[in-house]
Amino acid sequence: MRNIRLVIQYDGTRYKGWQRLGDNDHTIQAKIESVLSKMTGETIEIIGSGRTDAGVHALGQVTNFRTNSSMSIQEIQDYCYRYLPEDIVIKSVKEAGDKFHARYNATRKKYIYKIWNHLYHDPFNRKYITHITEPLNIDLMKEAADALVGLHDFTSFTTAKSKKKSMVREIYAIDIMKNGNNIEMLFQGNGFLHNMIRIIVGTLIEVGLGRIEVKEVKAILHKKDRKAAGATAPPQGLFLYDVDYK
Amino acid sequence: MRNIRLVIQYDGTRYKGWQRLGDNDHTIQAKIESVLSKMTGETIEIIGSGRTDAGVHALGQVTNFRTNSSMSIQEIQDYCYRYLPEDIVIKSVKEAGDKFHARYNATRKKYIYKIWNHLYHDPFNRKYITHITEPLNIDLMKEAADALVGLHDFTSFTTAKSKKKSMVREIYAIDIMKNGNNIEMLFQGNGFLHNMIRIIVGTLIEVGLGRIEVKEVKAILHKKDRKAAGATAPPQGLFLYDVDYK
Repeated sequence: MRNIRLVIQYDGTRYKGWQRLGDNDHTIQAKIESVLSKMTGETIEIIGSGRTDAGVHALGQVTNFRTNSSMSIQEIQDYCYRYLPEDIVIKSVKEAGDKFHARYNATRKKYIYKIWNHLYHDPFNRKYITHITEPLNIDLMKEAADALVGLHDFTSFTTAKSKKKSMVREIYAIDIMKNGNNIEMLFQGNGFLHNMIRIIVGTLIEVGLGRIEVKEVKAILHKKDRKAAGATAPPQGLFLYDVDYK
Repeated sequence: MRNIRLVIQYDGTRYKGWQRLGDNDHTIQAKIESVLSKMTGETIEIIGSGRTDAGVHALGQVTNFRTNSSMSIQEIQDYCYRYLPEDIVIKSVKEAGDKFHARYNATRKKYIYKIWNHLYHDPFNRKYITHITEPLNIDLMKEAADALVGLHDFTSFTTAKSKKKSMVREIYAIDIMKNGNNIEMLFQGNGFLHNMIRIIVGTLIEVGLGRIEVKEVKAILHKKDRKAAGATAPPQGLFLYDVDYK
């Protein structure tokens, strides 16, 4: 059986997130599976590197699926381009080694969170950015971000509720860049819990506005309590950017 | 009476163009006039540097209007930001000299036309770019563009039908830049006729695809016949970028 690796871009605005919840629901996974199943005549299940929430976008979601179809790589890409809605585009199609698993083999995930920091919004970039009207202090946000880098229990920064699964994750880097009114926050880690990046961003925004002190961030981490951290930042500014594999 | 200069950004997707055609119609001029009239209690007429067609955008449309209102510059900007739809944003508000006229005093207008040249579209930039799937030869397009720079009768490149008005315009420069799959064409001139840039772009696209030869472009100009030139390129890739004044 062939194992096919797809890299996918999507505008998450219209969707209930990546993960299929029921049959043929309005998720990105269900949309793609329905096209691949029609294409192959098989029941295709596609594995994503991870879930993205409702309204979150992807510039490079890595996935794989298994099929007995004999279609060429180019035929698969053309078929998907033709039948997928215009907010989902397959960027690349490749044959993957038999053991490749988009979720289990991922070693590093990269997300970008985009903020437009100006009194007035930009009419051409309303859907793919979070608008913060009050000026953010980037230096304070960078300092606070540094306190979160490393191996930590991120219970305070997730809405995941499982008591069995580990809330320990490693953040390799958080880089915050400002270019005019645009602020980009690049997150790299071995994995992120449900809503983790958006809660970290929400907390860093409050630091940047002077509502949370930099030194409090370590204390929030140690409390292991979601209520200690800031609000969950909106999904529209978040993009799954890239996934690394061994 | 005060003379107020506004610089306006708009996403033209939803509108029938800049120029008001009837009362309160779905044009950008009518939308802005209705907000300014409500704000001042006067019947405000706003003068734009020029018209933009249905679906064409502006990054810096320069305008002026006269009022007896005593509102401050900041109050005007805040009121407009609050009551205009989110696809129209006033970038700046200034007091203008009594003689300033946004149309008559303009000395140079700058437009950008954006093309995405790749087999597949970009899901995050679908509305503000024209998608051309076949590879364009930029060098040929640059050569052809050079033939149009200067003072010419642009009858072949407009849908304007007046027999009285002059079809002579001066194009100061056409710069074509390619960056990955993005092609940007920057037009500068003393003024442009109705649909002129879009017909020039449509013609240059046919040159870039090898359907019109570079040397034919001068002949098209000399024919003074709209049918000689290429198709009118779609409005969604066109932005009024900047307007210069004495």
